[in-house]
Amino acid sequence: MSPYQNLADVFATIQRFEHALTILNWDQEVMMPAGGADSRSEAVAELSALIHQKKCLPELKQWLDEAASQSDLDPEQSANLREMKRHWQDANLLPEALVREQSIAQSRCQHQWRSQRSNNDWAGFAVNLKTVVELERQRANIRQQALGSATAYDALLSLYSHGDGSELIGEVFCEIKQALPDMIRSAVDRQRSQTRPKVKGPFAVAAQRQLSEKVMAFLGFNFERGRLDVSTHPFSTGNFGDQRITTRYSETDFVEALYATIHETGHARYEAGLPEKWQSQPLGSARNMSIHESQSLFFEKHIGASRAFCDFLAQQANGVLRLPAPMTAGEFQCMVKWVEPGLIRVNADELTYPLHIVLRFEIESALINGAMEVDDIPTAWNDKMQAYLGLSTGKDYCNGCMQDIHWTMGAFGYFPSYTLGAVNAAQLRSAMEKAIGPIDDIVARGNIQPIADWLGGNIWQHGSLFESQELMIKATGKQTHARALLDHFQARYFG
Amino acid sequence: MSPYQNLADVFATIQRFEHALTILNWDQEVMMPAGGADSRSEAVAELSALIHQKKCLPELKQWLDEAASQSDLDPEQSANLREMKRHWQDANLLPEALVREQSIAQSRCQHQWRSQRSNNDWAGFAVNLKTVVELERQRANIRQQALGSATAYDALLSLYSHGDGSELIGEVFCEIKQALPDMIRSAVDRQRSQTRPKVKGPFAVAAQRQLSEKVMAFLGFNFERGRLDVSTHPFSTGNFGDQRITTRYSETDFVEALYATIHETGHARYEAGLPEKWQSQPLGSARNMSIHESQSLFFEKHIGASRAFCDFLAQQANGVLRLPAPMTAGEFQCMVKWVEPGLIRVNADELTYPLHIVLRFEIESALINGAMEVDDIPTAWNDKMQAYLGLSTGKDYCNGCMQDIHWTMGAFGYFPSYTLGAVNAAQLRSAMEKAIGPIDDIVARGNIQPIADWLGGNIWQHGSLFESQELMIKATGKQTHARALLDHFQARYFG
Repeated sequence: MSPYQNLADVFATIQRFEHALTILNWDQEVMMPAGGADSRSEAVAELSALIHQKKCLPELKQWLDEAASQSDLDPEQSANLREMKRHWQDANLLPEALVREQSIAQSRCQHQWRSQRSNNDWAGFAVNLKTVVELERQRANIRQQALGSATAYDALLSLYSHGDGSELIGEVFCEIKQALPDMIRSAVDRQRSQTRPKVKGPFAVAAQRQLSEKVMAFLGFNFERGRLDVSTHPFSTGNFGDQRITTRYSETDFVEALYATIHETGHARYEAGLPEKWQSQPLGSARNMSIHESQSLFFEKHIGASRAFCDFLAQQANGVLRLPAPMTAGEFQCMVKWVEPGLIRVNADELTYPLHIVLRFEIESALINGAMEVDDIPTAWNDKMQAYLGLSTGKDYCNGCMQDIHWTMGAFGYFPSYTLGAVNAAQLRSAMEKAIGPIDDIVARGNIQPIADWLGGNIWQHGSLFESQELMIKATGKQTHARALLDHFQARYFG
Repeated sequence: MSPYQNLADVFATIQRFEHALTILNWDQEVMMPAGGADSRSEAVAELSALIHQKKCLPELKQWLDEAASQSDLDPEQSANLREMKRHWQDANLLPEALVREQSIAQSRCQHQWRSQRSNNDWAGFAVNLKTVVELERQRANIRQQALGSATAYDALLSLYSHGDGSELIGEVFCEIKQALPDMIRSAVDRQRSQTRPKVKGPFAVAAQRQLSEKVMAFLGFNFERGRLDVSTHPFSTGNFGDQRITTRYSETDFVEALYATIHETGHARYEAGLPEKWQSQPLGSARNMSIHESQSLFFEKHIGASRAFCDFLAQQANGVLRLPAPMTAGEFQCMVKWVEPGLIRVNADELTYPLHIVLRFEIESALINGAMEVDDIPTAWNDKMQAYLGLSTGKDYCNGCMQDIHWTMGAFGYFPSYTLGAVNAAQLRSAMEKAIGPIDDIVARGNIQPIADWLGGNIWQHGSLFESQELMIKATGKQTHARALLDHFQARYFG
């Protein structure tokens, strides 16, 4: 067998173990009773260690070197080789001692964060976070040296959004933070004459589930190849032919669960559209988190918040939930578009959300690159919240710099993908509409297939064949840029 | 580390992979959409191969030999070593080529059986079954030589009911087949004056589920450490702290699902009562299938069909299902005790069921020991059905020798455990009642804890510490014998 084929075999085996891990993790969040936790965590650790061992097999390095000079590889195989090397590097770069130290520090930080956050205990949290940051800087430096990343922070970004570096992100985010604060003020001004429509529950969970299923079916989710379930936090996961998404229902507000479902359906359709031929190989994976989030946000914000879709939702909700006072499409749209600066990222609306991310990007990049220390975070957070959203966090740490789980788990470099996703989604929409006409018209015709075909052809079917910016340029003619998002906001909020 | 400790580490690792496999298989039966089948079967095959590899590690043989002369092992560790050796033998005895041939032959036989059965196509089925039997004979002979089993068939019995050999089974079954045909005739005669009570649906599935949960709670099933779901065929599985049982609901008959739930709850309580300290080791496993079935049948037939339990069921069913015509405990008992010889094993009542098993035992042992050929099966089946149950199968193969899936998968030696389980259950009941008084009285007091304590202390907590007959002797003073079952039948049907 050729070195390339040897590698492909190892990665196919890894993929099968990852299939198992995916189901164990899904089951843990969705099905497992509390009593199973201990034995489950041991089984997950054992499988994870096995996968790590496979990625660290000594022969891989030699095969990677030899395969690089194999002349018989076609472009897809070459791209697959590039991705295999990336996985190999991610697994092999770090000394085992550091991996272990990080695991312990993050575990402690995350565990204590849950109560520290409730108690607004910044001082206690900062002690643990300093260790996490210190180790994360070590990880970043080791990766930077090996990968030749522009900055230490870039070496972490590449874990989540490979191909989208801090220079690009900095430019995009700079434009956003210059334009958004004014836009937000104007949008809030315009809203003054309106009141936010409110839904009045209780809404039976069984009916909400039925509504979710109808909406998912409209969005092309195939229930022969996937499931919808309930978990504490909505998520999307699965294996080839079996996409699993979750939502959470509240008896007092059906709209939140519905849009969580729509968002996760976007993730699921991307996964379901990945190239079957490459299902066992790294090339068959979704490109990166920025692209993934662009698909979920495309479904949530561009299809889901369109006038025609709100029409459809209003009809369905009135029918399935038997609303005592029928809702109109206009009310739906008004709810979805409501702008209100707030302290909490996960509750933020479309217009204010990017500034929550810009703030975190600026702080976490400075932290990892050594330009800021953990003790500086609360002041920086407060200053930026005031500058971007006109809100003060002061000593309200639990609603400020202690609100997110990400840093406790050492996931520095993850936040930007949320807003890169929003930018990419708007940019894809703009290109798509040039090709197939307004989304609103397509949705109004009751069949989103043309939209799925366009996304499938331009994004889904490529898997990880192209680097992310290459993919964006092929699909839209340009690399990721803020303009499309700002244009979208202009049209939606001031059009 | 000592050789014993090395072995214990390997088996703990195997146990964690088996945890994963358990969840993958459960998910496949209960949750997985059809589209996931292909990638799931690859993941399951990969994990199964990995477990097999671990059991075939070359160093295991040496460690087993060395550990056998370790003088520092306590009795539990020695028993664990015996069980590890048993697992090692089961995995290592067969040449890989035979394992592969069997897998292919069984897969084909089982697949084609589904349509051949519908078409009553014995001739087509026999072709495949001959190959399966031929390979199974090879497996039996290899095992017999290595293990020193009394007969080739005994070498297969040991896969499912280790410790219960064909001599013991032959004696027990001989007594059963001498006594039962007369008993059945008398019971049917006595029934002449009655009509079988019928339930009238439809019964909503949600209400049936609620009823199942109430009954499980009464039986001590802990929903913090387990789940109830739905599958095509009811089964019980799970991992430490997480017992998962399934049932199936019919809208026209709630009693069948209810008793399936009770049966599986018995399996689950045994598993939940296994020694926590040994959860990662072979010693922590249930003893064998004969003992396992004794627990499920104890719950189904001895608790579940008791007068007091039927009282409880009638109350619950009337309340939860809102039966238009309330049922009485007497009607419940009459349904559960109804005797009616029939062609199909899975539909058989308690009194006729053992004869279905005796018939299969006699045929499959003769087949494996070379005293019968596949072509002889239909005649033998018909003769025995006439002798034992007074029914003719003639050329109605699909309701005769083609009704079961077991032989298609090469599971020769499995059938006896059903009736050994029934015998053991009756024998345990007799011993238990001497110690703690009539089950009916305990159930009538509304708390089965004394029953669970007795079963826990005598069976569950021992895991695989004792061989099965040792376990029965410790619990009941005698090895497995038919008398207790016949006495139970006498009391129930003619008392």
